Amino acid sequence: MAWNKVAVVGAGMTRFGELFEAGLEQLAGEAFLEAVASVPKGFDVADLDAAYFANVVGSLQGNEIPSGATLANAIGLPGLAATRIENGCPSGSDAVRQGCLAIASGVADVVVVVGAEKLRERSTQSSLLESGRMGHPILTYGGTAATLFAPQVARHMYEYGTTREQMARVAVKSWANGARNPKAQRGGDLTVDAVLDSPVVCTPFGILDCCPQSDGGAAVILCRADRAAHYTDTPVLVAGLGLATDPLYIHEKQTMTGWACTRTAVQRAYAMAGIGPSDVDVAEVHDCFTGVELLNYEDLGFCEEGAAGKLVEAGDTDIGGRIPVNPSGGLLAKGHPIGATGVAQIVELYTQLREEAGARQVELRTGYALQHNLGGYSVGVSVVTILGRA
Amino acid sequence: MAWNKVAVVGAGMTRFGELFEAGLEQLAGEAFLEAVASVPKGFDVADLDAAYFANVVGSLQGNEIPSGATLANAIGLPGLAATRIENGCPSGSDAVRQGCLAIASGVADVVVVVGAEKLRERSTQSSLLESGRMGHPILTYGGTAATLFAPQVARHMYEYGTTREQMARVAVKSWANGARNPKAQRGGDLTVDAVLDSPVVCTPFGILDCCPQSDGGAAVILCRADRAAHYTDTPVLVAGLGLATDPLYIHEKQTMTGWACTRTAVQRAYAMAGIGPSDVDVAEVHDCFTGVELLNYEDLGFCEEGAAGKLVEAGDTDIGGRIPVNPSGGLLAKGHPIGATGVAQIVELYTQLREEAGARQVELRTGYALQHNLGGYSVGVSVVTILGRA
Repeated sequence: MAWNKVAVVGAGMTRFGELFEAGLEQLAGEAFLEAVASVPKGFDVADLDAAYFANVVGSLQGNEIPSGATLANAIGLPGLAATRIENGCPSGSDAVRQGCLAIASGVADVVVVVGAEKLRERSTQSSLLESGRMGHPILTYGGTAATLFAPQVARHMYEYGTTREQMARVAVKSWANGARNPKAQRGGDLTVDAVLDSPVVCTPFGILDCCPQSDGGAAVILCRADRAAHYTDTPVLVAGLGLATDPLYIHEKQTMTGWACTRTAVQRAYAMAGIGPSDVDVAEVHDCFTGVELLNYEDLGFCEEGAAGKLVEAGDTDIGGRIPVNPSGGLLAKGHPIGATGVAQIVELYTQLREEAGARQVELRTGYALQHNLGGYSVGVSVVTILGRA
Repeated sequence: MAWNKVAVVGAGMTRFGELFEAGLEQLAGEAFLEAVASVPKGFDVADLDAAYFANVVGSLQGNEIPSGATLANAIGLPGLAATRIENGCPSGSDAVRQGCLAIASGVADVVVVVGAEKLRERSTQSSLLESGRMGHPILTYGGTAATLFAPQVARHMYEYGTTREQMARVAVKSWANGARNPKAQRGGDLTVDAVLDSPVVCTPFGILDCCPQSDGGAAVILCRADRAAHYTDTPVLVAGLGLATDPLYIHEKQTMTGWACTRTAVQRAYAMAGIGPSDVDVAEVHDCFTGVELLNYEDLGFCEEGAAGKLVEAGDTDIGGRIPVNPSGGLLAKGHPIGATGVAQIVELYTQLREEAGARQVELRTGYALQHNLGGYSVGVSVVTILGRA
């Protein structure tokens, strides 16, 4: 019933964080090598037919364009058919999706998808701040990621009585999970009060409601499902995929208490997988800001509209809860190196479905996991991937 | 024998040129509307399952990132699953390739691919020139497109006696063809002497050996081959596809008289189509500089290595010759709005294979056409597409 044409057979990622010592190519290469080494029955890189690369801000901030060939060279395989996918914050997820389509098309049997990003290294002349100073039409007026996501969260508070305490509870959960993930940028015993008392970035977000800026890389190796046994006895299958866009202008948005693109994308993914939200054992969702995770719960169908605050309060999305969300620490604690983020979400769910997540392992019931990645200019793109155990 | 899983059923493009009056979204939208209007039996945009967008320098020069959602909104279809492909100068061709893979995967039945670029509109602060002034590691030392392509052409002259006169003959042909194409940026009766006397940009290229900087948009509508009859009685099929990368550093290149990535890409495409170079009726190849077109003849197998100069001298690649190359005017005359270029090459070949090219129509024999697009940072990516009549 599920799509199941593609299997994940390897996954790897660098530590996420402020990695001033590593360049973009190095992060891509490290993630790739870890993914190759992770393949249970071994992997010959000569088996690769194609590569997909997710990177977003390289061209914005570095005055360079990291293209497909950048990845092919970084992983030591010039000649490979390599393509760069750019689709805002969900670039990594879309790269995984394109890799799946390439395999399902019959043109490629084995594909590697790598996402990598350097956010903590930029020339002063080409930084976003400098772009604002130079008269950039949006940045000059204070347009940032926080201001793009805040209106929906604020409206949700107004409509449903969602509180800053409930939002803070998301950060507390993420930091607790992050402390159990050696690859996470941060983690530990955060308190609700610490989040509430953190300096305001953009109402209703304090600094601890926001994900950090991160460097990092992540990689997954995909192959035809019917060849997965060549690489592993415990593959994870791609059960469903969905991508949708949204109007760019806020006055055209179809909802102000969520994002229509997520609702469409998840509908497509559930239909392809032949499952519904109650079948999801574990999810990695796009928690760039605490309140955004709450709205995502509703867009993804994890609870009724307006009930997300209560869901996190009840501990239902904790590891051990009814539907654990972001056991990796999520963007809030694991970090958010943009192009790598979606790929890293797949890495985490692959690890969870193989029950290799150690201290942060969730309990599996159905064997289905959901990945969700949201963003792009004016929050215009959402990607959902559903994975299932073979 | 050929792949033939995907059909082209519509194609459109804007005029290429210095279009100061049109923005990126407008160029994308105009090309899309022309493609929709071109579908012989009519086209309902609600049939679209996905969109692919090729754009390269938007993020470099505009401090914006035009993502998948940018295209979905520009064509009035927010909600659509839209992805941006970036792979240097072959971005448009790779977007067509990804659109084909999406259809062959079974996930999409009908896809639009749009390429658009603004090269003639950039803020002074974010121009490449300014990047050089600010200390960009390559641009500061004079690294430009011309300097990336010149070494191979110079070596070809040294190895095989290829002359500047033979190179100039390419420009003369392109301008003659451009004069027959109402969408071309330039065209007319250019003389070999005018090219030889044009100011040197980078030896061995004078300014008339170089393609112009262009704004423009192009679009094609693709569908499952077995549904093409719904849209047209004269579809064009995608017979083969190939993409390959190259080492980025010149000392690692496998040849200095051509590009290995093209040789690999075309081998993949010929194998998929089940044809060879002698089966090609007409080709659009990447003539960013006159000499590059000559080297491409050899990489693509149109003649023996070293014989390209004689091929163009003999008129074999003229309209009416043995294997007409760039009847559209090519990059040299039609123009080179980067993300649009590969898509526009497909537009031209679709038009040629339907025998609707008017004054520049070539004579068809086998009904196969070849598209070739080369470039990216350090000339690291090549894409070849083979089209055939149904």
